[in-house]
Amino acid sequence: MPRPDSSEPAVQPDDIAAAMDRIRLHVRETPVLDVGAGQLGLMAPVTLKLELLQHAGSFKTRGAVNRTLLATSDGEVGAAGLIAASGGNHGAAVAYVGRRLGHPAEIFMPSTSPAIKRERIESFGAIVNVIDGYFDDAYAACVERQAASGALMVHPFEHAAIIAGQGTMSIEIDDQVGDYDTLIVAAGGGGFIAGQAAWVRDRRRVVSVEPETSQCLKAAREHGGPTSVSVSGVAADSLGTARLGELAWTIVQHHVDESVVVTDDAIRAAQRSLWDELRLVVEPGGAAALAALQSGAYVPEPGERIVVAVCGSNCDPASVM
Amino acid sequence: MPRPDSSEPAVQPDDIAAAMDRIRLHVRETPVLDVGAGQLGLMAPVTLKLELLQHAGSFKTRGAVNRTLLATSDGEVGAAGLIAASGGNHGAAVAYVGRRLGHPAEIFMPSTSPAIKRERIESFGAIVNVIDGYFDDAYAACVERQAASGALMVHPFEHAAIIAGQGTMSIEIDDQVGDYDTLIVAAGGGGFIAGQAAWVRDRRRVVSVEPETSQCLKAAREHGGPTSVSVSGVAADSLGTARLGELAWTIVQHHVDESVVVTDDAIRAAQRSLWDELRLVVEPGGAAALAALQSGAYVPEPGERIVVAVCGSNCDPASVM
Repeated sequence: MPRPDSSEPAVQPDDIAAAMDRIRLHVRETPVLDVGAGQLGLMAPVTLKLELLQHAGSFKTRGAVNRTLLATSDGEVGAAGLIAASGGNHGAAVAYVGRRLGHPAEIFMPSTSPAIKRERIESFGAIVNVIDGYFDDAYAACVERQAASGALMVHPFEHAAIIAGQGTMSIEIDDQVGDYDTLIVAAGGGGFIAGQAAWVRDRRRVVSVEPETSQCLKAAREHGGPTSVSVSGVAADSLGTARLGELAWTIVQHHVDESVVVTDDAIRAAQRSLWDELRLVVEPGGAAALAALQSGAYVPEPGERIVVAVCGSNCDPASVM
Repeated sequence: MPRPDSSEPAVQPDDIAAAMDRIRLHVRETPVLDVGAGQLGLMAPVTLKLELLQHAGSFKTRGAVNRTLLATSDGEVGAAGLIAASGGNHGAAVAYVGRRLGHPAEIFMPSTSPAIKRERIESFGAIVNVIDGYFDDAYAACVERQAASGALMVHPFEHAAIIAGQGTMSIEIDDQVGDYDTLIVAAGGGGFIAGQAAWVRDRRRVVSVEPETSQCLKAAREHGGPTSVSVSGVAADSLGTARLGELAWTIVQHHVDESVVVTDDAIRAAQRSLWDELRLVVEPGGAAALAALQSGAYVPEPGERIVVAVCGSNCDPASVM
């Protein structure tokens, strides 16, 4: 794929506003929760965006709905329906969208993803193929199959309609929270954080959080563009992407202000605190942004008003206790 | 205790508004979530009040904070601190309040309550005494101990300050939802539903939901006042009260419009659907109100705008899957 012109963000605020109008009937407006100082091990108050309550359990549904609706109106979705590779959450989102809009769906997921993600995809009636390895292995198998089936490839992050869909979360936050300073977001392939950054641009600080075991966004910032890294760790099923998306990079390079990493232990501790204090079951990737605050990987200024995206729920509850 | 004059509700809207001002700094404004038609097995949209995200995992914190703050300002809380009997949620709330306001707390809970409730109470530093049986057995032991210790008895429902505190949830709903028709609420001893009914009075319909295995509110309506019933079933740890509170009755008789019961199977099904579709861990008593809609125990009119209180989270996640 040719490298896009990275001098201009691939997704503009107008694209995100249009996505919001398009997907509104098919996604949930997820709630926010204000958490006071002293809770969740934090010294200062914070607002949690409970995006884990989205359909199919993560923000991925926003992008998948937007991409599929656009492709449907362009006549790009045939009898073979939708196909996608995914650590699990995007697959569940595509399966949900397929069922909701009446398209068959076939999902390729890596063997390293938890069984509960496979079960969730299958609960929406999609076909699941499990491939040995991580996301990129599943993606390679998916590309091969798509060439034969002719289904619409719904890439988890490398498409402007996906990024624009994910960005609709920040429109809701603006409406729900009003003024704030900083949005803290986990990053995998970069579609989620790119969507938020493309909406808020320079109006808010955007902080990227990655596991130290999978840090393709931080690597891209240091390298001056996407570059391959190795991936592993507790959050690999949602954040374990080897290379930041090229489209995401056109946005991230301009509008992500800081990039931090957290340990797997910090992610586990964040999951436990969300269970202990809020009884929320949050998957590792969904808890990573909070982990950055709790662990001190990101240290806010006094009075800095912070929103943390809690963005995925699909894991075995026994693993968060 | 003498029977209060039941011609006049024991708690007035002004009491609830005052409670809101008093407790605001110590409770969470819990979010609402709109759920569309076709979700959670429902034919029509519904709004969920996610009160299970309250401190200590249930609405009980509202009443416990209000009662304790009032008693503290009246000089009624001494070195012995707070004492309470509880199926678990009220105990966790009193333990939370004790730690937050600097009072020791001692909780009596029945052996039939789950271990996770005991652990939550202990996590706030309270002393826990487990008594064989159900709530009323724990209450008897608590009364005996209170006579010796002189701690402030924080009754789970038979006190106007408790009922007024619980009613603050409906102030939030009015602010969050705007106009709606019907509030569906689970009932145990009646403090929670009485608080809501005392606030909304005749502006909304209030529907009471009880397990068919523990139906002291329905019995009171049929008997013309509180009367003793037997209690058992999956929700007994939160709704298993043998006799409706006398103070609650002064409100319930005027402002609860309908009383329905649900089976234990319907409660389990509601818990499973909340897990499957929203990844929320909801205890049986917290899922009972939704079960009334799902099972058809309560059948809304076409277009009836409904709010369902999802009011408690303290259970083993393995039990909801």
